[in-house]
Amino acid sequence: MSSSDIFIGETIGTAVLILLGGGVCAAVTLKRSKAKDAGWLAITFGWGFAVLTGAYLAGGVSGAHLNPAVTIGLAVDGGTKWSDVPVYLASQLLGAMIGAVLVWATYYGQFQAHLTDPEVLAAQPVEDGLVDQKAAPKAGPVLGIFSTGPEIRNIAQNLVTEIIATTVLVLAILTQGLNDGGNGLGTLGALITALVVVGIGLSLGGPTGYAINPVRDLGPRIVHALLPLPNKGGSDWSYAWIPVVGPLLGGALAACIFKLF
Amino acid sequence: MSSSDIFIGETIGTAVLILLGGGVCAAVTLKRSKAKDAGWLAITFGWGFAVLTGAYLAGGVSGAHLNPAVTIGLAVDGGTKWSDVPVYLASQLLGAMIGAVLVWATYYGQFQAHLTDPEVLAAQPVEDGLVDQKAAPKAGPVLGIFSTGPEIRNIAQNLVTEIIATTVLVLAILTQGLNDGGNGLGTLGALITALVVVGIGLSLGGPTGYAINPVRDLGPRIVHALLPLPNKGGSDWSYAWIPVVGPLLGGALAACIFKLF
Amino acid sequence: MSSSDIFIGETIGTAVLILLGGGVCAAVTLKRSKAKDAGWLAITFGWGFAVLTGAYLAGGVSGAHLNPAVTIGLAVDGGTKWSDVPVYLASQLLGAMIGAVLVWATYYGQFQAHLTDPEVLAAQPVEDGLVDQKAAPKAGPVLGIFSTGPEIRNIAQNLVTEIIATTVLVLAILTQGLNDGGNGLGTLGALITALVVVGIGLSLGGPTGYAINPVRDLGPRIVHALLPLPNKGGSDWSYAWIPVVGPLLGGALAACIFKLF
Amino acid sequence: MSSSDIFIGETIGTAVLILLGGGVCAAVTLKRSKAKDAGWLAITFGWGFAVLTGAYLAGGVSGAHLNPAVTIGLAVDGGTKWSDVPVYLASQLLGAMIGAVLVWATYYGQFQAHLTDPEVLAAQPVEDGLVDQKAAPKAGPVLGIFSTGPEIRNIAQNLVTEIIATTVLVLAILTQGLNDGGNGLGTLGALITALVVVGIGLSLGGPTGYAINPVRDLGPRIVHALLPLPNKGGSDWSYAWIPVVGPLLGGALAACIFKLF
Repeated sequence: MSSSDIFIGETIGTAVLILLGGGVCAAVTLKRSKAKDAGWLAITFGWGFAVLTGAYLAGGVSGAHLNPAVTIGLAVDGGTKWSDVPVYLASQLLGAMIGAVLVWATYYGQFQAHLTDPEVLAAQPVEDGLVDQKAAPKAGPVLGIFSTGPEIRNIAQNLVTEIIATTVLVLAILTQGLNDGGNGLGTLGALITALVVVGIGLSLGGPTGYAINPVRDLGPRIVHALLPLPNKGGSDWSYAWIPVVGPLLGGALAACIFKLF
Repeated sequence: MSSSDIFIGETIGTAVLILLGGGVCAAVTLKRSKAKDAGWLAITFGWGFAVLTGAYLAGGVSGAHLNPAVTIGLAVDGGTKWSDVPVYLASQLLGAMIGAVLVWATYYGQFQAHLTDPEVLAAQPVEDGLVDQKAAPKAGPVLGIFSTGPEIRNIAQNLVTEIIATTVLVLAILTQGLNDGGNGLGTLGALITALVVVGIGLSLGGPTGYAINPVRDLGPRIVHALLPLPNKGGSDWSYAWIPVVGPLLGGALAACIFKLF
Repeated sequence: MSSSDIFIGETIGTAVLILLGGGVCAAVTLKRSKAKDAGWLAITFGWGFAVLTGAYLAGGVSGAHLNPAVTIGLAVDGGTKWSDVPVYLASQLLGAMIGAVLVWATYYGQFQAHLTDPEVLAAQPVEDGLVDQKAAPKAGPVLGIFSTGPEIRNIAQNLVTEIIATTVLVLAILTQGLNDGGNGLGTLGALITALVVVGIGLSLGGPTGYAINPVRDLGPRIVHALLPLPNKGGSDWSYAWIPVVGPLLGGALAACIFKLF
Repeated sequence: MSSSDIFIGETIGTAVLILLGGGVCAAVTLKRSKAKDAGWLAITFGWGFAVLTGAYLAGGVSGAHLNPAVTIGLAVDGGTKWSDVPVYLASQLLGAMIGAVLVWATYYGQFQAHLTDPEVLAAQPVEDGLVDQKAAPKAGPVLGIFSTGPEIRNIAQNLVTEIIATTVLVLAILTQGLNDGGNGLGTLGALITALVVVGIGLSLGGPTGYAINPVRDLGPRIVHALLPLPNKGGSDWSYAWIPVVGPLLGGALAACIFKLF
């Protein structure tokens, strides 16, 4: 696999992953969206089929990691060369940012309507369980479309949740590599991975919103900070390192567990 | 593949696609339907399994394009001969019209009950976000069962949304052609495409209702204009070109992106 | 395939189909069920996975028709011998009755609680759209767990709905026979058929509750008439022929359309 | 298959099964979870994809029984050696306990918030249909995240429900062994089994919450009794034998029925 294959596959695949994943968050959140309030099941299936689509597109080109936690897991496991890791990570981050911009383009009118709506602006930010609520960073009213955030803000707890959820994901992907005799995603493997992601969302997404992928959180957060959205509020940078570090630790942990097999 | 195979496969496949796709919109919309108000998840899975059924039926006969955006994408890419394009498009439009008539036949009693219900007739049309609401065309109370319409009416925005969503769809179908060594839909490929369509609906369907297929919108809109439905209201022809042009541009764009792979 | 294989496969497969299909109706209907009011999406996925399970169990034994409309369709098409048809039909009816009894056994306590609840007994029967409501047969409060019934009672309309829905189902199954080189259900084919059934339910189930299978309706209706349920009400025999005749016509029609391919 | 393969595969696979299965129950139950009140469909898909993930991980290592009822069914059928049964059962119970602890770790903050919430503590326990309500054991407010419990407490009825549901499950798994020429779970087989489990939940889960697996209920119940959760209430040990005995009988019954095929 050449570096340019990796670059093209990971950039396009991750862009589609975030376009569809961020898209479903926009769909259920924003005013004047037909899918407003479609619920948690819609969100989890939306993210699952986002993985399916991105993995399906990029599978034959770059192996469809689409996630630094997967890349690290495969590198620790030996399936991916460490020298390829930088281009994987860079193209994943670039793709995630492109995807977030495409969400904005798709829902441009809805973003404008939502962020200039008096009711939305008057609403109190959702309490997030801080002992000292005054110290809580104010998350903007659409930040949840771009990045994850915890229901209860607690560094250790939030890290543990992300580590556990990512370990399950990367274990499943490593197993698939075993079953398929390579780390490329076969068509059926992409489907299984997608449904595993639906399952992780349904089962482990409650506390933090399941980043389970550093660029899925960081790329769109950067875009949120840069986009000219009216009344967008803060980007909650104080939380930003957790969905980066947690998934990376989970990916490495999964590779260690996998060696038991 | 002979012209008559293409004609039969595309006509029957597209008819089933629209029968099931329009059917789920009727099911969740009309009075006296057991599925009334079943929600956005029902609509998106309904359309996805409509694609699955239509593609499965027509896959071995005509390649199951069922969508001019797919046909154009495959023609630009080289997988379909330009000389076959006219018969594809004509049979897709015919099939879409047949499908819309079958929705009416299936839900005949429900259409009658809904369109003569005093509450339905008294309801204000859903506001669609025009700056000058007086200039908004009045969409009939059942037009949404036949055709798509925007939540916020804005030519550029609506086009962009349809282009992005269709690009994702056609990229996935072109990838499948690559994986399957041909443009015919294999059984697993039909399933993946169906789930990608569920995903596109969940994630990108909020602003315009995701036509992503010119005949899916135009065929039923013509049927809406022709059917003897009581109190059916207008067919919103001023919007009709957007779900035709947007998806065609998306299909061509996907073929261009695909050549990068 | 021997007659005893057909008998065992169809009896067990259809029993499981109706156990799970009737079961989901019990689950969302009865008082003191954890799934009470889980909604239309739960019902349609429940029936779809009922088909999956029954077809998966019986596929290698009897070909898993589980439905006289499928048997007739395959016989007209030539895939099944007419001399095998009687044993198919008899074992399907027997299996459907066994399945309905198993639903009762599974939900015995819930049936008792529901049918002796004062609120349930006081509720007016759901109006079903007859012009002359006095002439409407009183459907019992749990008949919907056993058999289908129309939202709007109209012979021609209800027949048309059942014919159209069954035609789609049998077309898909005939196509599968083509794809698999036989009429036995492969594993992937069983999955596709199951999802097609989910789709038919979502899209075409609104008016009549989609019997699309004569024994699915008739077998449980007989069991409803025989079971010692308290306050069970009538079995609505005046409607019973429609979900038998409609699906049989749909199965034959599908075989005729299929010959076009 | 060596004993150490069985031990590793079953322990990790069952741990993941219970992590995801218990996780979805935590997700929809606990205060401050993003998935709170996501509904029965979320629970049933969550458990189904839990099976998918666990089976996928362990399939190539231990055959992925993950359930003593499956192990017993395969032993009766002859696919698994009786001498391997003890290590299967021990590792499944260990895995289930590990999984329940991981649910607690993932949702630690939510458990604390829920179990110290005045509203939660003031709520009456859900009535469960005992004739003599005073004799009903008080189930703790989070026991349902760990173990199953009946809506109507009746030994014979609850046993019958668990036997029927488990028979369907184990029949499907034995059939798969037949189709795959071995008792190892192929990738597609894991998917079918997962969807069958979704179906069993939707259709047969209403009365007892479908344990259909002795360790799925017993392992987490032990963990519930041991964990230092505030105000956790009782572990309802009087019911605990039913979801152990019922599924074991169902597994054996399935093997007997399967020999008819």
